[in-house]
Amino acid sequence: MTGRTDLRRKPERAVDDRDAIHDVLDEGLMAHVGLVAGTGDQAHPVVIPMLYARDGERLILHGSPASRLLRTAKGGVDVCVTVTLLDALVLARSGLHHSMNYRSIVIMGRATEVIDHAEKVAALDRLVEHTIPGRTSQVRAAHDIEVTGTTVLTLPLAECSLKVRTGGPVDDPDDVDDPAWAGLIPIGVAVGEPIPDNAASSQTVPGHVAFWARGPGQLNGRPAPDGETT
Amino acid sequence: MTGRTDLRRKPERAVDDRDAIHDVLDEGLMAHVGLVAGTGDQAHPVVIPMLYARDGERLILHGSPASRLLRTAKGGVDVCVTVTLLDALVLARSGLHHSMNYRSIVIMGRATEVIDHAEKVAALDRLVEHTIPGRTSQVRAAHDIEVTGTTVLTLPLAECSLKVRTGGPVDDPDDVDDPAWAGLIPIGVAVGEPIPDNAASSQTVPGHVAFWARGPGQLNGRPAPDGETT
Repeated sequence: MTGRTDLRRKPERAVDDRDAIHDVLDEGLMAHVGLVAGTGDQAHPVVIPMLYARDGERLILHGSPASRLLRTAKGGVDVCVTVTLLDALVLARSGLHHSMNYRSIVIMGRATEVIDHAEKVAALDRLVEHTIPGRTSQVRAAHDIEVTGTTVLTLPLAECSLKVRTGGPVDDPDDVDDPAWAGLIPIGVAVGEPIPDNAASSQTVPGHVAFWARGPGQLNGRPAPDGETT
Repeated sequence: MTGRTDLRRKPERAVDDRDAIHDVLDEGLMAHVGLVAGTGDQAHPVVIPMLYARDGERLILHGSPASRLLRTAKGGVDVCVTVTLLDALVLARSGLHHSMNYRSIVIMGRATEVIDHAEKVAALDRLVEHTIPGRTSQVRAAHDIEVTGTTVLTLPLAECSLKVRTGGPVDDPDDVDDPAWAGLIPIGVAVGEPIPDNAASSQTVPGHVAFWARGPGQLNGRPAPDGETT
Protein backbone atom coordinates (compact mmCIF):
# COMPACT_ATOMS: atom_id res chain seq x y z
CA MET A 1 0.00 0.00 0.00
CA THR A 2 1.37 3.41 -0.90
CA GLY A 3 0.49 6.99 -0.16
CA ARG A 4 -2.31 7.65 -2.60
CA THR A 5 -4.53 4.84 -1.34
CA ASP A 6 -3.65 5.30 2.33
CA LEU A 7 -6.87 6.05 4.10
CA ARG A 8 -6.96 9.60 5.34
CA ARG A 9 -10.48 9.42 6.76
CA LYS A 10 -11.36 6.85 9.42
CA PRO A 11 -8.11 4.88 9.07
CA GLU A 12 -9.46 2.40 11.63
CA ARG A 13 -11.64 1.10 8.81
CA ALA A 14 -8.60 0.15 6.74
CA VAL A 15 -7.75 -3.52 6.37
CA ASP A 16 -4.26 -4.39 5.14
CA ASP A 17 -4.71 -8.06 4.40
CA ARG A 18 -4.15 -9.57 0.95
CA ASP A 19 -6.57 -12.45 1.59
CA ALA A 20 -9.30 -10.02 2.64
CA ILE A 21 -8.67 -7.91 -0.46
CA HIS A 22 -8.84 -10.99 -2.68
CA ASP A 23 -12.06 -12.16 -1.01
CA VAL A 24 -13.82 -8.85 -1.65
CA LEU A 25 -12.68 -8.72 -5.27
CA ASP A 26 -13.75 -12.34 -5.81
CA GLU A 27 -17.21 -11.67 -4.33
CA GLY A 28 -17.89 -8.51 -6.33
CA LEU A 29 -19.61 -8.58 -9.72
CA MET A 30 -19.05 -5.05 -10.96
CA ALA A 31 -16.29 -2.47 -10.73
CA HIS A 32 -16.59 1.26 -11.20
CA VAL A 33 -13.64 2.38 -13.28
CA GLY A 34 -12.60 6.02 -13.18
CA LEU A 35 -10.20 7.92 -15.40
CA VAL A 36 -9.46 11.47 -16.36
CA ALA A 37 -10.87 12.33 -19.79
CA GLY A 38 -9.76 15.41 -21.69
CA THR A 39 -6.71 17.51 -20.94
CA GLY A 40 -5.94 20.89 -19.41
CA ASP A 41 -9.06 22.93 -18.69
CA GLN A 42 -11.17 20.22 -20.29
CA ALA A 43 -9.98 17.47 -17.92
CA HIS A 44 -12.88 15.81 -16.15
CA PRO A 45 -13.52 12.51 -14.39
CA VAL A 46 -15.44 9.66 -16.03
CA VAL A 47 -16.73 6.69 -14.02
CA ILE A 48 -17.99 3.62 -15.90
CA PRO A 49 -19.37 0.32 -14.54
CA MET A 50 -17.45 -2.67 -15.88
CA LEU A 51 -17.17 -6.40 -15.42
CA TYR A 52 -13.82 -7.46 -14.05
CA ALA A 53 -11.94 -10.49 -12.77
CA ARG A 54 -9.06 -11.01 -10.39
CA ASP A 55 -6.09 -13.07 -11.59
CA GLY A 56 -3.68 -13.40 -8.69
CA GLU A 57 -2.32 -9.95 -7.92
CA ARG A 58 -3.82 -8.22 -10.92
CA LEU A 59 -7.23 -7.13 -12.12
CA ILE A 60 -8.50 -7.91 -15.63
CA LEU A 61 -10.76 -5.54 -17.57
CA HIS A 62 -11.99 -5.89 -21.12
CA GLY A 63 -14.08 -4.21 -23.76
CA SER A 64 -14.40 -3.13 -27.33
CA PRO A 65 -11.34 -1.40 -28.79
CA ALA A 66 -13.74 1.44 -29.64
CA SER A 67 -14.57 2.06 -25.98
CA ARG A 68 -13.35 5.49 -24.96
CA LEU A 69 -12.38 4.28 -21.53
CA LEU A 70 -10.31 1.34 -22.72
CA ARG A 71 -8.77 3.39 -25.51
CA THR A 72 -7.69 6.05 -23.04
CA ALA A 73 -6.49 3.58 -20.43
CA LYS A 74 -4.43 1.73 -23.07
CA GLY A 75 -2.45 4.90 -23.58
CA GLY A 76 -1.10 4.57 -20.07
CA VAL A 77 -3.45 6.93 -18.27
CA ASP A 78 -3.97 6.37 -14.55
CA VAL A 79 -7.17 4.61 -13.58
CA CYS A 80 -8.98 4.16 -10.28
CA VAL A 81 -11.02 0.97 -9.94
CA THR A 82 -13.47 0.74 -7.05
CA VAL A 83 -15.46 -2.37 -6.01
CA THR A 84 -18.06 -1.97 -3.27
CA LEU A 85 -20.07 -4.66 -1.48
CA LEU A 86 -23.00 -3.55 0.70
CA ASP A 87 -23.59 -5.75 3.75
CA ALA A 88 -26.18 -3.93 5.86
CA LEU A 89 -28.08 -0.73 6.46
CA VAL A 90 -27.16 0.67 9.87
CA LEU A 91 -30.13 2.32 11.62
CA ALA A 92 -29.23 4.63 14.50
CA ARG A 93 -31.32 6.92 16.71
CA SER A 94 -30.29 10.08 14.86
CA GLY A 95 -30.14 10.72 11.15
CA LEU A 96 -26.44 11.47 10.91
CA HIS A 97 -25.44 8.29 12.74
CA HIS A 98 -27.13 6.19 10.08
CA SER A 99 -24.57 4.33 8.02
CA MET A 100 -23.92 1.26 5.91
CA ASN A 101 -21.85 -1.80 6.61
CA TYR A 102 -19.75 -2.32 3.52
CA ARG A 103 -16.49 -3.57 2.11
CA SER A 104 -14.87 -1.38 -0.51
CA ILE A 105 -11.68 -1.78 -2.52
CA VAL A 106 -9.95 1.13 -4.24
CA ILE A 107 -7.17 0.29 -6.71
CA MET A 108 -5.11 3.00 -8.35
CA GLY A 109 -2.56 2.44 -11.05
CA ARG A 110 -1.81 2.30 -14.72
CA ALA A 111 -3.51 -0.38 -16.80
CA THR A 112 -1.51 -2.12 -19.52
CA GLU A 113 -2.83 -3.95 -22.54
CA VAL A 114 -2.50 -7.72 -22.88
CA ILE A 115 -1.19 -8.46 -26.40
CA ASP A 116 -0.26 -12.15 -26.34
CA HIS A 117 -3.08 -14.19 -27.85
CA ALA A 118 -2.95 -17.10 -25.41
CA GLU A 119 -2.75 -14.72 -22.47
CA LYS A 120 -5.78 -12.82 -23.81
CA VAL A 121 -7.75 -16.07 -24.13
CA ALA A 122 -6.87 -16.99 -20.54
CA ALA A 123 -7.88 -13.53 -19.31
CA LEU A 124 -11.22 -13.67 -21.13
CA ASP A 125 -11.88 -17.08 -19.58
CA ARG A 126 -11.09 -15.62 -16.15
CA LEU A 127 -13.71 -12.91 -16.73
CA VAL A 128 -16.39 -15.52 -17.42
CA GLU A 129 -15.28 -17.74 -14.53
CA HIS A 130 -15.24 -14.77 -12.15
CA THR A 131 -18.89 -14.03 -12.81
CA ILE A 132 -20.11 -17.63 -13.27
CA PRO A 133 -17.78 -20.29 -11.87
CA GLY A 134 -17.80 -23.45 -13.98
CA ARG A 135 -19.10 -21.67 -17.05
CA THR A 136 -16.14 -21.76 -19.43
CA SER A 137 -16.23 -25.56 -19.73
CA GLN A 138 -19.86 -25.30 -20.92
CA VAL A 139 -19.36 -22.95 -23.87
CA ARG A 140 -17.33 -23.05 -27.06
CA ALA A 141 -13.82 -21.62 -27.16
CA ALA A 142 -13.47 -18.03 -28.33
CA HIS A 143 -12.86 -17.58 -32.07
CA ASP A 144 -9.58 -15.90 -32.95
CA ILE A 145 -11.44 -12.96 -34.48
CA GLU A 146 -13.32 -12.43 -31.19
CA VAL A 147 -10.06 -12.37 -29.25
CA THR A 148 -8.44 -10.00 -31.74
CA GLY A 149 -11.47 -7.74 -31.61
CA THR A 150 -11.43 -7.40 -27.84
CA THR A 151 -9.15 -5.19 -25.79
CA VAL A 152 -7.91 -6.75 -22.55
CA LEU A 153 -6.23 -4.66 -19.87
CA THR A 154 -4.60 -5.65 -16.61
CA LEU A 155 -4.04 -3.51 -13.56
CA PRO A 156 -1.71 -4.58 -10.73
CA LEU A 157 -3.17 -4.74 -7.22
CA ALA A 158 -0.06 -3.00 -5.92
CA GLU A 159 -1.68 0.30 -4.94
CA CYS A 160 -4.81 -1.04 -3.35
CA SER A 161 -6.80 -0.39 -0.17
CA LEU A 162 -9.71 -2.10 1.56
CA LYS A 163 -12.12 -0.18 3.77
CA VAL A 164 -14.63 -2.04 5.90
CA ARG A 165 -17.44 -1.06 8.26
CA THR A 166 -18.99 -3.76 10.44
CA GLY A 167 -21.11 -3.85 13.58
CA GLY A 168 -24.16 -2.07 14.86
CA PRO A 169 -25.10 1.60 15.12
CA VAL A 170 -22.98 3.94 17.23
CA ASP A 171 -25.34 6.39 18.91
CA ASP A 172 -24.67 9.48 20.94
CA PRO A 173 -24.80 8.59 24.65
CA ASP A 174 -27.69 11.04 25.08
CA ASP A 175 -29.75 9.16 22.49
CA VAL A 176 -29.50 5.54 23.63
CA ASP A 177 -32.80 5.70 25.56
CA ASP A 178 -34.69 7.16 22.58
CA PRO A 179 -37.59 4.94 21.50
CA ALA A 180 -36.48 4.51 17.85
CA TRP A 181 -35.73 0.98 16.63
CA ALA A 182 -31.99 0.66 16.04
CA GLY A 183 -29.95 -2.11 14.51
CA LEU A 184 -29.02 -3.61 11.16
CA ILE A 185 -30.93 -4.58 8.03
CA PRO A 186 -28.64 -7.11 6.31
CA ILE A 187 -28.51 -6.84 2.53
CA GLY A 188 -26.82 -8.88 -0.16
CA VAL A 189 -27.27 -10.30 -3.65
CA ALA A 190 -30.71 -11.83 -4.27
CA VAL A 191 -30.97 -14.50 -6.96
CA GLY A 192 -34.17 -15.26 -8.86
CA GLU A 193 -35.20 -18.40 -10.68
CA PRO A 194 -33.11 -18.82 -13.84
CA ILE A 195 -34.99 -17.83 -17.02
CA PRO A 196 -33.99 -20.15 -19.90
CA ASP A 197 -34.09 -19.07 -23.50
CA ASN A 198 -36.24 -21.06 -25.91
CA ALA A 199 -33.72 -23.72 -26.92
CA ALA A 200 -34.48 -27.29 -25.92
CA SER A 201 -31.01 -27.51 -24.35
CA SER A 202 -31.89 -24.68 -21.96
CA GLN A 203 -34.90 -26.39 -20.41
CA THR A 204 -32.83 -28.38 -17.91
CA VAL A 205 -30.95 -26.10 -15.53
CA PRO A 206 -27.37 -27.25 -14.91
CA GLY A 207 -25.67 -26.97 -11.52
CA HIS A 208 -23.49 -23.96 -12.31
CA VAL A 209 -26.70 -22.04 -13.04
CA ALA A 210 -29.02 -23.57 -10.42
CA PHE A 211 -26.54 -23.01 -7.59
CA TRP A 212 -25.14 -19.67 -8.70
CA ALA A 213 -24.89 -17.40 -5.66
CA ARG A 214 -22.78 -14.58 -4.29
CA GLY A 215 -22.11 -13.67 -0.69
CA PRO A 216 -23.85 -14.86 2.48
CA GLY A 217 -26.01 -17.93 1.81
CA GLN A 218 -28.75 -17.03 4.25
CA LEU A 219 -29.52 -13.90 2.21
CA ASN A 220 -29.70 -15.15 -1.34
CA GLY A 221 -32.30 -17.87 -0.85
CA ARG A 222 -30.56 -20.22 -3.27
CA PRO A 223 -30.17 -23.95 -2.71
CA ALA A 224 -26.65 -25.06 -1.79
CA PRO A 225 -25.08 -27.81 -3.90
CA ASP A 226 -25.29 -30.25 -0.99
CA GLY A 227 -29.00 -29.62 -0.50
CA GLU A 228 -28.62 -27.57 2.67
CA THR A 229 -30.09 -24.11 2.77
CA THR A 230 -27.12 -22.35 4.25
CA MET B 1 -36.23 10.99 -41.17
CA THR B 2 -33.32 10.44 -38.81
CA GLY B 3 -33.37 9.36 -35.23
CA ARG B 4 -32.43 12.81 -34.05
CA THR B 5 -35.29 14.58 -35.76
CA ASP B 6 -37.51 11.80 -34.49
CA LEU B 7 -36.54 12.69 -30.96
CA ARG B 8 -37.14 16.38 -31.54
CA ARG B 9 -40.57 15.64 -32.91
CA LYS B 10 -41.47 13.53 -29.91
CA PRO B 11 -40.55 15.68 -26.93
CA GLU B 12 -42.70 13.49 -24.69
CA ARG B 13 -39.89 10.94 -24.83
CA ALA B 14 -37.75 13.38 -22.91
CA VAL B 15 -40.32 13.27 -20.13
CA ASP B 16 -40.25 9.48 -20.23
CA ASP B 17 -36.48 9.58 -20.00
CA ARG B 18 -36.60 11.85 -16.95
CA ASP B 19 -38.96 9.44 -15.22
CA ALA B 20 -36.70 6.49 -16.03
CA ILE B 21 -33.65 8.39 -14.74
CA HIS B 22 -35.50 9.29 -11.55
CA ASP B 23 -36.62 5.69 -11.04
CA VAL B 24 -33.09 4.32 -11.31
CA LEU B 25 -31.71 6.95 -8.95
CA ASP B 26 -34.51 6.32 -6.46
CA GLU B 27 -33.90 2.56 -6.53
CA GLY B 28 -30.12 2.78 -6.07
CA LEU B 29 -28.47 2.75 -2.63
CA MET B 30 -24.91 3.73 -3.47
CA ALA B 31 -23.22 6.04 -5.95
CA HIS B 32 -19.64 5.90 -7.13
CA VAL B 33 -18.32 9.45 -7.20
CA GLY B 34 -15.31 10.27 -9.34
CA LEU B 35 -13.14 13.35 -9.39
CA VAL B 36 -9.70 14.37 -10.53
CA ALA B 37 -7.28 14.63 -7.61
CA GLY B 38 -3.94 16.40 -7.89
CA THR B 39 -2.90 18.74 -10.68
CA GLY B 40 -0.61 18.67 -13.69
CA ASP B 41 1.46 15.49 -13.88
CA GLN B 42 0.04 14.37 -10.55
CA ALA B 43 -3.59 14.47 -11.72
CA HIS B 44 -5.28 11.12 -11.22
CA PRO B 45 -8.84 9.84 -10.89
CA VAL B 46 -10.36 8.91 -7.53
CA VAL B 47 -13.62 6.93 -7.28
CA ILE B 48 -15.33 6.71 -3.89
CA PRO B 49 -18.59 4.94 -2.93
CA MET B 50 -21.07 7.32 -1.31
CA LEU B 51 -24.63 7.43 -0.10
CA TYR B 52 -26.76 9.85 -2.07
CA ALA B 53 -30.32 11.03 -2.50
CA ARG B 54 -32.30 12.55 -5.33
CA ASP B 55 -34.18 15.78 -4.67
CA GLY B 56 -36.12 16.64 -7.80
CA GLU B 57 -33.61 17.46 -10.52
CA ARG B 58 -30.55 17.40 -8.31
CA LEU B 59 -28.47 14.87 -6.45
CA ILE B 60 -27.50 15.32 -2.79
CA LEU B 61 -24.17 14.11 -1.39
CA HIS B 62 -22.78 14.61 2.09
CA GLY B 63 -19.82 13.89 4.29
CA SER B 64 -17.36 15.21 6.77
CA PRO B 65 -15.76 18.56 5.89
CA ALA B 66 -12.45 16.70 6.27
CA SER B 67 -13.26 14.30 3.45
CA ARG B 68 -10.83 14.79 0.59
CA LEU B 69 -13.49 14.20 -1.99
CA LEU B 70 -16.00 16.65 -0.57
CA ARG B 71 -13.29 19.21 0.09
CA THR B 72 -12.13 19.03 -3.50
CA ALA B 73 -15.62 19.01 -4.93
CA LYS B 74 -16.55 22.07 -2.87
CA GLY B 75 -13.89 24.00 -4.70
CA GLY B 76 -15.85 23.65 -7.90
CA VAL B 77 -14.08 20.67 -9.41
CA ASP B 78 -16.01 18.59 -11.91
CA VAL B 79 -17.40 15.31 -10.61
CA CYS B 80 -18.83 12.23 -12.29
CA VAL B 81 -21.44 10.32 -10.29
CA THR B 82 -22.39 6.84 -11.48
CA VAL B 83 -25.22 4.69 -10.09
CA THR B 84 -25.51 1.12 -11.39
CA LEU B 85 -28.27 -1.43 -10.75
CA LEU B 86 -27.61 -5.05 -11.77
CA ASP B 87 -30.72 -6.89 -12.97
CA ALA B 88 -29.48 -10.20 -14.38
CA LEU B 89 -26.52 -12.24 -15.50
CA VAL B 90 -26.84 -12.98 -19.22
CA LEU B 91 -25.54 -16.45 -20.13
CA ALA B 92 -24.83 -17.00 -23.82
CA ARG B 93 -23.30 -19.92 -25.74
CA SER B 94 -19.90 -18.26 -26.12
CA GLY B 95 -17.83 -16.45 -23.52
CA LEU B 96 -17.73 -13.05 -25.19
CA HIS B 97 -21.51 -12.92 -25.61
CA HIS B 98 -21.99 -13.19 -21.87
CA SER B 99 -23.28 -9.93 -20.44
CA MET B 100 -25.28 -8.32 -17.66
CA ASN B 101 -28.66 -6.71 -17.72
CA TYR B 102 -28.27 -3.44 -15.89
CA ARG B 103 -29.43 0.14 -15.57
CA SER B 104 -26.70 2.71 -15.15
CA ILE B 105 -26.83 6.48 -14.69
CA VAL B 106 -23.85 8.72 -15.33
CA ILE B 107 -24.09 12.33 -14.13
CA MET B 108 -21.37 14.84 -14.91
CA GLY B 109 -21.22 18.34 -13.55
CA ARG B 110 -19.99 20.66 -10.87
CA ALA B 111 -21.20 20.16 -7.33
CA THR B 112 -22.00 23.17 -5.18
CA GLU B 113 -22.16 23.38 -1.41
CA VAL B 114 -25.43 23.94 0.41
CA ILE B 115 -24.90 26.69 3.00
CA ASP B 116 -28.38 27.59 4.23
CA HIS B 117 -29.06 25.79 7.50
CA ALA B 118 -32.69 24.88 6.82
CA GLU B 119 -31.81 23.69 3.34
CA LYS B 120 -29.02 21.53 4.78
CA VAL B 121 -31.41 19.98 7.31
CA ALA B 122 -33.88 19.19 4.52
CA ALA B 123 -31.10 17.66 2.39
CA LEU B 124 -29.85 15.48 5.27
CA ASP B 125 -33.42 14.28 5.86
CA ARG B 126 -33.67 13.42 2.15
CA LEU B 127 -30.53 11.28 2.46
CA VAL B 128 -32.08 9.24 5.29
CA GLU B 129 -35.46 8.98 3.54
CA HIS B 130 -33.80 7.90 0.30
CA THR B 131 -32.20 4.91 1.98
CA ILE B 132 -34.98 4.10 4.46
CA PRO B 133 -38.38 5.63 3.60
CA GLY B 134 -40.30 6.63 6.71
CA ARG B 135 -37.22 6.78 8.89
CA THR B 136 -36.86 10.52 9.60
CA SER B 137 -40.11 10.65 11.58
CA GLN B 138 -38.74 7.95 13.89
CA VAL B 139 -35.52 9.65 14.97
CA ARG B 140 -34.67 12.92 16.71
CA ALA B 141 -34.01 16.06 14.70
CA ALA B 142 -30.36 16.81 13.87
CA HIS B 143 -28.55 19.02 16.39
CA ASP B 144 -27.29 22.32 15.00
CA ILE B 145 -23.71 21.27 15.63
CA GLU B 146 -24.23 18.11 13.56
CA VAL B 147 -25.58 20.15 10.64
CA THR B 148 -22.74 22.66 10.90
CA GLY B 149 -20.22 19.82 11.02
CA THR B 150 -21.48 18.18 7.86
CA THR B 151 -20.78 19.23 4.31
CA VAL B 152 -23.71 18.93 1.93
CA LEU B 153 -23.26 19.17 -1.83
CA THR B 154 -25.79 19.21 -4.65
CA LEU B 155 -25.23 18.28 -8.25
CA PRO B 156 -27.76 19.13 -10.97
CA LEU B 157 -29.10 16.25 -13.07
CA ALA B 158 -28.62 18.42 -16.17
CA GLU B 159 -25.80 16.41 -17.80
CA CYS B 160 -27.09 12.95 -17.16
CA SER B 161 -27.46 9.76 -19.18
CA LEU B 162 -29.16 6.42 -18.62
CA LYS B 163 -27.86 3.23 -20.23
CA VAL B 164 -29.95 0.06 -20.06
CA ARG B 165 -29.50 -3.53 -21.20
CA THR B 166 -32.53 -5.81 -21.07
CA GLY B 167 -33.51 -9.12 -22.63
CA GLY B 168 -31.88 -12.46 -23.18
CA PRO B 169 -28.54 -13.53 -24.65
CA VAL B 170 -27.71 -12.64 -28.26
CA ASP B 171 -25.78 -15.57 -29.70
CA ASP B 172 -23.96 -15.96 -32.98
CA PRO B 173 -26.28 -17.72 -35.48
CA ASP B 174 -23.73 -20.56 -35.72
CA ASP B 175 -23.97 -21.18 -31.98
CA VAL B 176 -27.71 -21.39 -31.36
CA ASP B 177 -27.76 -25.19 -31.59
CA ASP B 178 -24.90 -25.59 -29.11
CA PRO B 179 -25.89 -27.62 -26.05
CA ALA B 180 -24.97 -24.99 -23.44
CA TRP B 181 -27.74 -23.68 -21.18
CA ALA B 182 -28.49 -20.07 -22.12
CA GLY B 183 -30.70 -17.49 -20.50
CA LEU B 184 -30.84 -15.13 -17.55
CA ILE B 185 -30.07 -15.41 -13.86
CA PRO B 186 -32.04 -12.53 -12.31
CA ILE B 187 -30.29 -10.72 -9.46
CA GLY B 188 -31.33 -7.96 -7.11
CA VAL B 189 -31.09 -6.77 -3.52
CA ALA B 190 -31.57 -9.53 -0.93
CA VAL B 191 -32.80 -8.51 2.51
CA GLY B 192 -32.12 -10.48 5.69
CA GLU B 193 -33.98 -10.51 8.98
CA PRO B 194 -33.43 -7.22 10.81
CA ILE B 195 -30.88 -7.50 13.66
CA PRO B 196 -31.94 -5.26 16.57
CA ASP B 197 -29.48 -3.74 18.99
CA ASN B 198 -29.86 -4.53 22.69
CA ALA B 199 -32.29 -1.76 23.64
CA ALA B 200 -35.76 -2.80 24.77
CA SER B 201 -37.24 -0.40 22.20
CA SER B 202 -35.54 -2.35 19.40
CA GLN B 203 -37.16 -5.70 20.17
CA THR B 204 -40.33 -4.91 18.23
CA VAL B 205 -39.61 -4.35 14.54
CA PRO B 206 -41.56 -1.40 13.09
CA GLY B 207 -43.00 -1.42 9.59
CA HIS B 208 -40.40 0.81 7.96
CA VAL B 209 -37.79 -1.79 8.99
CA ALA B 210 -39.81 -4.99 8.56
CA PHE B 211 -40.95 -4.06 5.05
CA TRP B 212 -37.76 -2.39 3.82
CA ALA B 213 -37.02 -3.57 0.28
CA ARG B 214 -35.46 -2.36 -2.93
CA GLY B 215 -36.24 -3.40 -6.46
CA PRO B 216 -38.28 -6.36 -7.71
CA GLY B 217 -40.34 -7.91 -4.90
CA GLN B 218 -40.01 -11.49 -6.12
CA LEU B 219 -36.26 -11.31 -5.59
CA ASN B 220 -35.90 -9.85 -2.14
CA GLY B 221 -38.04 -12.32 -0.25
CA ARG B 222 -39.48 -9.64 2.03
CA PRO B 223 -43.11 -9.50 3.12
CA ALA B 224 -45.15 -6.76 1.48
CA PRO B 225 -46.98 -4.33 3.79
CA ASP B 226 -50.36 -5.81 2.76
CA GLY B 227 -49.27 -9.31 3.70
CA GLU B 228 -48.83 -10.52 0.14
CA THR B 229 -45.50 -11.99 -0.86
CA THR B 230 -45.11 -10.08 -4.11
